[in-house]
Amino acid sequence: MTTTISQWAARRDAAIAVLRQHLLPTPLVRIHLEGFDAPAYLKLETMQPTGSFKVRGALASVAASVRSGRAVVTASTGNHGLGVAYAATRLGAQAIVVVSENTSTVKIDAMRLFAIDLRLVGDGYDAAEAAALDLAAEEGALFVSAYTDPDVIAGQATLVDEVAGQLPGAFQIVVPVGGGGLASGIALAAPVGARVVGVEAAASRAVSTSMTVGRVVEVEIGTTIADGLAGNIVPDAMTPRILAECGVGMVAVEEAAIHDAVRELALRYGVVAEGSASVGIAAARLGQVSPDMSTVFAITGRNIAADRFARLLSS
Amino acid sequence: MTTTISQWAARRDAAIAVLRQHLLPTPLVRIHLEGFDAPAYLKLETMQPTGSFKVRGALASVAASVRSGRAVVTASTGNHGLGVAYAATRLGAQAIVVVSENTSTVKIDAMRLFAIDLRLVGDGYDAAEAAALDLAAEEGALFVSAYTDPDVIAGQATLVDEVAGQLPGAFQIVVPVGGGGLASGIALAAPVGARVVGVEAAASRAVSTSMTVGRVVEVEIGTTIADGLAGNIVPDAMTPRILAECGVGMVAVEEAAIHDAVRELALRYGVVAEGSASVGIAAARLGQVSPDMSTVFAITGRNIAADRFARLLSS
Repeated sequence: MTTTISQWAARRDAAIAVLRQHLLPTPLVRIHLEGFDAPAYLKLETMQPTGSFKVRGALASVAASVRSGRAVVTASTGNHGLGVAYAATRLGAQAIVVVSENTSTVKIDAMRLFAIDLRLVGDGYDAAEAAALDLAAEEGALFVSAYTDPDVIAGQATLVDEVAGQLPGAFQIVVPVGGGGLASGIALAAPVGARVVGVEAAASRAVSTSMTVGRVVEVEIGTTIADGLAGNIVPDAMTPRILAECGVGMVAVEEAAIHDAVRELALRYGVVAEGSASVGIAAARLGQVSPDMSTVFAITGRNIAADRFARLLSS
Repeated sequence: MTTTISQWAARRDAAIAVLRQHLLPTPLVRIHLEGFDAPAYLKLETMQPTGSFKVRGALASVAASVRSGRAVVTASTGNHGLGVAYAATRLGAQAIVVVSENTSTVKIDAMRLFAIDLRLVGDGYDAAEAAALDLAAEEGALFVSAYTDPDVIAGQATLVDEVAGQLPGAFQIVVPVGGGGLASGIALAAPVGARVVGVEAAASRAVSTSMTVGRVVEVEIGTTIADGLAGNIVPDAMTPRILAECGVGMVAVEEAAIHDAVRELALRYGVVAEGSASVGIAAARLGQVSPDMSTVFAITGRNIAADRFARLLSS
């Protein structure tokens, strides 16, 4: 499967090297998940310095851009932008980050702490991505996709290396899917015998629909508290093909189940997780994850606005 | 200092052995604490199966009671009772847990999930403790204090062993103090060169007042969101003497600072922490912790009621 991305082994090695310099492994915590018979674990990417796993792919891709001597332009629902801002600061690179005007305020506020060129464009991820692509062409800069960039995918893949080092024996890993970059990296790097389950928000099923159709198709994007997963993917996105070829099973969860999962993560496990990060627990609750082997839930980010979080907890 | 508790070395060894069978180490996570120059870490006891560190001392003391063949009676503000409930279930022991009628509902609900004899008595910890002492005498059972029991203290001491294994080099550890059991165990077991800082809620300063006076004195207990720290200590409590002899520095924090620390732990670090667990971060924020060496904040528990937590986040 490693032929899907050119120079995959070299990209992975480079990603592992840059991550070792800048990040510590995140905790893997055992939990008791009511009614779920297999041993269950949370991989707490919420403990990353930027509050999400996206810093992995961002460090890998910004390091690659530094090697090529070009500035970076990216579009993001927030967490990838935050990762790029962190990586650019650490690696001394220049970065332009384009986000939509309705990006989660907590993510915008966090990005403003970094010395990047932050631009707010349009009313959704799709418009921000289009603007970023134009900008990269104008400026001769490197566009780093949040999900379909080979180095981003190689960076996200380091998550499963860490899990394999923390958990002896076979496991399945349950991964939120927006553009599919994390799931692709994990599927490509997963050890023999591991199973990968992708979970989308029902309101935003670009990747699974494209996998079913056999080419990238545009879907309608509904409103979701899993804001980090919302949006279409570019026509030449490689992620649906990677996930299909790797045999990744896909499921989707509705809003009410995501609400409950955010509450459960906070109140039963003490973990602040944004909606996007909670879809795996929601899927397990709905019986969409087979409890037939040790199961790792990638809890991908913590960047949820205080008022939204408070409303979810008191509802 | 190990002569303060009889058979300290044997109690420690027994505690380490029983914990190894029933608990995994909790994560130590590096954070960036604004305005605090030294490297800072959170020791996430919020990830214990009962949601607090109290399960350490509970396992150690219930294991000791099983060896003596006696049932256990205890009084608790909630987390120690929950630890004893967990330990009794794991070790096949009988336990009576007495809590006050105004104990945090989330803690009462969690204790009801275990096969223990739970009794609600009076309107504060002091009344619950008096009732539990009477009950133990009547029933010929072993009263296990939440803070001044030698095996409980030996169990809590395992926290600093874990930290020493996770963090190379010298460190200071910032520890919430209610009855002082955790701080005593840590002070007795801390490696050479480590410093221990105890933090009380300003509304409940039984231990530091007793340290200053040189004997246990009763203090007025105010209202505090650090409910796990509130209450007086019994006249023969050994904890003030241990902390004084070990040279543990004591500070105290007001309610507003605890509120802010709960918010900061949730929104900046993704950690659900109860008021009691947040006093160390509050103290650091107030400049009461010297940033002159690597600093570990013991984040002792996550058991905060949803509505209270939601109010704190939206205030």
